[in-house]
Amino acid sequence: MSDHVYKKIELVGSSATSIEDAIENAVTTAAKSIDHLEWFEVVETRGHIVDGKVGHYQVVIKAGFRLDVS
Amino acid sequence: MSDHVYKKIELVGSSATSIEDAIENAVTTAAKSIDHLEWFEVVETRGHIVDGKVGHYQVVIKAGFRLDVS
Amino acid sequence: MSDHVYKKIELVGSSATSIEDAIENAVTTAAKSIDHLEWFEVVETRGHIVDGKVGHYQVVIKAGFRLDVS
Amino acid sequence: MSDHVYKKIELVGSSATSIEDAIENAVTTAAKSIDHLEWFEVVETRGHIVDGKVGHYQVVIKAGFRLDVS
Amino acid sequence: MSDHVYKKIELVGSSATSIEDAIENAVTTAAKSIDHLEWFEVVETRGHIVDGKVGHYQVVIKAGFRLDVS
Amino acid sequence: MSDHVYKKIELVGSSATSIEDAIENAVTTAAKSIDHLEWFEVVETRGHIVDGKVGHYQVVIKAGFRLDVS
Amino acid sequence: MSDHVYKKIELVGSSATSIEDAIENAVTTAAKSIDHLEWFEVVETRGHIVDGKVGHYQVVIKAGFRLDVS
Amino acid sequence: MSDHVYKKIELVGSSATSIEDAIENAVTTAAKSIDHLEWFEVVETRGHIVDGKVGHYQVVIKAGFRLDVS
Amino acid sequence: MSDHVYKKIELVGSSATSIEDAIENAVTTAAKSIDHLEWFEVVETRGHIVDGKVGHYQVVIKAGFRLDVS
Amino acid sequence: MSDHVYKKIELVGSSATSIEDAIENAVTTAAKSIDHLEWFEVVETRGHIVDGKVGHYQVVIKAGFRLDVS
Amino acid sequence: MSDHVYKKIELVGSSATSIEDAIENAVTTAAKSIDHLEWFEVVETRGHIVDGKVGHYQVVIKAGFRLDVS
Amino acid sequence: MSDHVYKKIELVGSSATSIEDAIENAVTTAAKSIDHLEWFEVVETRGHIVDGKVGHYQVVIKAGFRLDVS
Repeated sequence: MSDHVYKKIELVGSSATSIEDAIENAVTTAAKSIDHLEWFEVVETRGHIVDGKVGHYQVVIKAGFRLDVS
Repeated sequence: MSDHVYKKIELVGSSATSIEDAIENAVTTAAKSIDHLEWFEVVETRGHIVDGKVGHYQVVIKAGFRLDVS
Repeated sequence: MSDHVYKKIELVGSSATSIEDAIENAVTTAAKSIDHLEWFEVVETRGHIVDGKVGHYQVVIKAGFRLDVS
Repeated sequence: MSDHVYKKIELVGSSATSIEDAIENAVTTAAKSIDHLEWFEVVETRGHIVDGKVGHYQVVIKAGFRLDVS
Repeated sequence: MSDHVYKKIELVGSSATSIEDAIENAVTTAAKSIDHLEWFEVVETRGHIVDGKVGHYQVVIKAGFRLDVS
Repeated sequence: MSDHVYKKIELVGSSATSIEDAIENAVTTAAKSIDHLEWFEVVETRGHIVDGKVGHYQVVIKAGFRLDVS
Repeated sequence: MSDHVYKKIELVGSSATSIEDAIENAVTTAAKSIDHLEWFEVVETRGHIVDGKVGHYQVVIKAGFRLDVS
Repeated sequence: MSDHVYKKIELVGSSATSIEDAIENAVTTAAKSIDHLEWFEVVETRGHIVDGKVGHYQVVIKAGFRLDVS
Repeated sequence: MSDHVYKKIELVGSSATSIEDAIENAVTTAAKSIDHLEWFEVVETRGHIVDGKVGHYQVVIKAGFRLDVS
Repeated sequence: MSDHVYKKIELVGSSATSIEDAIENAVTTAAKSIDHLEWFEVVETRGHIVDGKVGHYQVVIKAGFRLDVS
Repeated sequence: MSDHVYKKIELVGSSATSIEDAIENAVTTAAKSIDHLEWFEVVETRGHIVDGKVGHYQVVIKAGFRLDVS
Repeated sequence: MSDHVYKKIELVGSSATSIEDAIENAVTTAAKSIDHLEWFEVVETRGHIVDGKVGHYQVVIKAGFRLDVS
């Protein structure tokens, strides 16, 4: 594994349900066009408030994938 | 939306159940006295440990609302 | 409580289920060998992606316990 | 000046024109209800994009005022 | 304690004597109008220099109190 | 809006005129190839000095756009 | 001194008296079981408020000691 | 350019007009006594409030210049 | 140079040999598909440990290139 | 005060007695060669441990003075 | 791998030769008493200057190992 | 050593060869005009890319020296 190169992209997933679901939405959407996603890091968690309640969560993540897969 | 002014306040919600529930508790308590809460940002997540298990989560958030609503 | 001394250790818990479960795993594992764990602070949340989905969450926490309990 | 106490509040001003105008909007709105505002600190600068151009700037500031003015 | 909600406010205390005295001044001034202050966190320590000596210390703290005490 | 996914990219705009103009240059250049840019965040402001004056401003921004627009 | 290895541990000292006393309490408690403590770094200063006054200071420090002393 | 050495100094410029003007004031004042200023980085933006309006901006910058110019 | 626009991407290079080699691997891999890479910034340095020794270094960098080259 | 320019320098003061005394030592030493010191900001607090006790405090400060005083 | 728990410790390695060698010294010293070290993260790089040259590098790392290996 | 005062300056060294060589260049250049340099801290590591390869490293350091040596 020693000489691989990875790229990290920054995504924002949202969900009315949970922080985990917002992360999963970001990951699965990215996975539609990127094949080798290997890890994510949560950068920021925020959300909108609607009628005095949490409307939905927005989770900013970085996701990493291998650049040099042939 | 271009000339609105918002205020952000810092709250700590707690819950024995989940991080989301701690956020929801902070938001709904603030909403009792503030009308136009629009968004929140998670600042810190922590909690107490009781008998070797998570006793409750404490989530510090900032919540924003419009100051200039007439 | 004024003159107590605490030590904080850094742990990484993981879970395929949720962020809360990853924290709980770290806390309960540490509690097997440490008696007076009192609080935790989340330092970082990340995870692995497997087949385009979240494989598991990894949550880095600091956990504090009293050093001077006789 | 040595024993005064100040409070800092966090505001978000917006403006379609400039960063300075967004700060000014936050300050003048706060000044309507607070008498002794003395300084501000810019915390974050962001904005919305509309039709591929900057729609308006949003500037988060902290503003400080004396608490103990009799 | 599990479902309480707290608010954190940001204060600046000053003192010609010591950092501790500046914190105490901020806390006691806030306590005149807020009943349930429970903790503080030092955010920043600074001060003015007068005639080549420390004139007074300024300590920025956040102070937390329960919002939901009935 | 609850289940959208966004991507954030990092850009550096420059301008001899102003910080706002540097941001605008970054946004309008990105908008030539990206359709749904919705917001930006200023990450860093710097610039070059030429003959003892500001030669031009360089502003690093993150810009966000929807990934899942069909 | 060029090839030594040190370990840093994180401690929280508390004191009703002063920040310095809280640091000293953390250091002297750690020194009971660790022989070669050489330096400390203050990470965070906070405290509890009791009856509208500072009840005690809590100072989080990192303390370093040599690992390879034979 | 590969072996040059630079020094960075920290300056605070102020201006009643704009953030750019405050930066320019800091740069031109420094340029009176330093010959090879090459770049600046904005570290902090703040200002004073006078009569409920922005009185002047204060911008903290770092400015870099070559040390080894013969 | 005053009106150029750049894009920054985040890469992770790895190497069993050195930190510099890990950076070089990230840069040369990116250069295969991007023409005008101009600078890099090290964001994070980490690595894996194998059999009690450093197995390889992983260096996270941001790399910048001009967007508007015609 | 609106168009003044200040320079900030970084100093480390030490004292066997207290954090305040370490700051005072840094300020008074700098004041021997600099005339218009106006403020300081604490950047870091650390110290050495000798025989299991705090040997002395080291406080890193930034100190600001006017550059353009004629 | 989903339910493992890791502990992270903070070490300082030093070397007169290189940053990599300082990291290696920290890792190999820790590996004498800890079996399952898996990764490290560089936290800080510093060093001493002797006779106007780098005397040795000091690299602060965090190193992670599995806690729950039976 | 308890009452010494130090000054820290910020330097940028560059080198086509290595990070260590860039640090050494900054230190030896500073040592030509400053007598009592005692330590350095790496603040930032970056560099230029030329023809798809690392052209040279630029390392920003802070270097400390005693102010009160008579």
